Amino acid sequence: MASAYSKSGVNLKLAHSVKANLPALLRKASRPEVLGKIGAFGGLFRAAFKGYGDPVLVSSMDGVGTKLRIAVEMGRHDTVGQDLINHCCNDIAVMGAEPLFFLDYIGTGKLERNVFDGIVRGLAKGCAEANVALVGGETAQMPGFYHPGDYDLVGTIVGVVDRKKIMDGSRIRTGDVVLGLGSSGLHTNGYSLARKVLFDQLKLKARSKIRELGNESLGDLLLKVHLNYEPFLKQLRSKKIDLHGAAHITGGGFEENIPRVLAPGLGVEVRRGSWKIPAIFDFIQKAGKISEEEMYRVFNMGVGMVLMSPAKAVPAIQKAARQSRISVFDIGCVVRGKSKVTLV
Amino acid sequence: MASAYSKSGVNLKLAHSVKANLPALLRKASRPEVLGKIGAFGGLFRAAFKGYGDPVLVSSMDGVGTKLRIAVEMGRHDTVGQDLINHCCNDIAVMGAEPLFFLDYIGTGKLERNVFDGIVRGLAKGCAEANVALVGGETAQMPGFYHPGDYDLVGTIVGVVDRKKIMDGSRIRTGDVVLGLGSSGLHTNGYSLARKVLFDQLKLKARSKIRELGNESLGDLLLKVHLNYEPFLKQLRSKKIDLHGAAHITGGGFEENIPRVLAPGLGVEVRRGSWKIPAIFDFIQKAGKISEEEMYRVFNMGVGMVLMSPAKAVPAIQKAARQSRISVFDIGCVVRGKSKVTLV
Repeated sequence: MASAYSKSGVNLKLAHSVKANLPALLRKASRPEVLGKIGAFGGLFRAAFKGYGDPVLVSSMDGVGTKLRIAVEMGRHDTVGQDLINHCCNDIAVMGAEPLFFLDYIGTGKLERNVFDGIVRGLAKGCAEANVALVGGETAQMPGFYHPGDYDLVGTIVGVVDRKKIMDGSRIRTGDVVLGLGSSGLHTNGYSLARKVLFDQLKLKARSKIRELGNESLGDLLLKVHLNYEPFLKQLRSKKIDLHGAAHITGGGFEENIPRVLAPGLGVEVRRGSWKIPAIFDFIQKAGKISEEEMYRVFNMGVGMVLMSPAKAVPAIQKAARQSRISVFDIGCVVRGKSKVTLV
Repeated sequence: MASAYSKSGVNLKLAHSVKANLPALLRKASRPEVLGKIGAFGGLFRAAFKGYGDPVLVSSMDGVGTKLRIAVEMGRHDTVGQDLINHCCNDIAVMGAEPLFFLDYIGTGKLERNVFDGIVRGLAKGCAEANVALVGGETAQMPGFYHPGDYDLVGTIVGVVDRKKIMDGSRIRTGDVVLGLGSSGLHTNGYSLARKVLFDQLKLKARSKIRELGNESLGDLLLKVHLNYEPFLKQLRSKKIDLHGAAHITGGGFEENIPRVLAPGLGVEVRRGSWKIPAIFDFIQKAGKISEEEMYRVFNMGVGMVLMSPAKAVPAIQKAARQSRISVFDIGCVVRGKSKVTLV
């Protein structure tokens, strides 16, 4: 007989049974510092931090946003976890941190086993690739809060940096070169606008193919995983390459994200045309008749992270990027001025 | 002119402007270990941990669940933040940890300034009372994902414990006394069932008053803030009182939460009638014709946390509880048996 609780929309038995798979799914999403076991009230992570003179924890919390709707429409749930972890890694990497552990939250109306398993597979893969331990999580069944099939996916990352090596932008100087690191697509920003243009206005479907966008379906293009630049930044550190600052280009684009690391009196000029904007952005702009200004405010426009470095460090960064198979573009420079970004 | 992005449902300007209030709202939600400033890509927290031989970070992530719907119906958003922080503090307190810092996520369809300000006020109050620093957060505008007026609220806490002092239940012994710490009400569990019975079946309103439940409205009763037992557990530690284990009683009740800290071969007997079950639970049970077994599986039934201690430590715990104004009940004992809870 169904319990009253299950009739109210919460299935404790299913919640229990899907959790039984977790230890196998998460085997590779661990690190030697992890103590304890899955199912404890809290995740345990040793904070020895050998070699750090004055260790500082760096943390960030984020969600996947409405990119989730593309995953739901495509019925493919095993990439959004990677998006989330990579997004979080980038947020703390721009401060100089090494990511250590991660926690996830899945909010849903009705728990569905295959969706849950897909999400967790993606999280596990993302953690393993980023060398991050998944130490905790919560799955909330909230009947009536989410549309059938929908869910929200949220994560928190914690990493560590030596206090002296915190990148807070204070080393950025006039004349520094601004380098753009190529993105894989929209990453996790601007999906509400992209969906409105592509699906509401153009009446396209996630499975539609557009000639000028190549052979992949729109859904595949829109689900491209957010790139994690942290391993690349770590490589630059290990090579003692002079990096003055970095900004993760997410919601708000260049305009809102670059000033987060600029000291007063410094601005940035970004040269239009100094990198190739991926076709998906041009397509959205034309189809939605969106101004260039707004495109740059909403989307990353092909640049997922910017680095600020003295000109003499640029060749070494470009060499390291080639080795890491990351595209790098010289897109501008740091100038005297108000703490803002000017497209020139 | 409204931008295309704002027409798609995302208001970056409002997001920007509500964030401008944050430094003032969050002034007291800090600690001396916090470095950096609000608006950085990551929160910074010094990990010096003086006096810890082998510091271990303890983390937990959780949401408020459908208690949020009561807040929405009452138009009162400044308590759910406290619920969340206190819930998270309890999760790591049962492992012996001291809470350090917290991050929050608000997911919403359309950002509303007064709702956002209320939530943040509650978070700030909860952090200040728990001596926890709010170091980061994310507010996601996800048009179409949430009903108008609805939001999800999620948080992550990170604390620290010395490795030797981790409470993982391994010190719990046959014959230990099980003490229940009184809850303030439903805390943050069972709201989907409570709402179904009270609002769908009985057609009551959040503002209704029920004679047998006293002078407060149903909404006020259901919004009672989740108690934070961490300061009490800290007090027990500082008094060197012998505490063998603790479990936070959340979703799944005694049945699912106590076994999380029981070693194989140990069970727990809980004596019915050994504490006074608050009237709200009796009312829900009778109105919803819910079995006693299910009530204990869904709700905390008036016990928000259980402690396991040797009998000789009990008087000192009771004395400390009186000083902390926490109700404590002798509700059972640890027995040989399968890792489960038996109501006797």
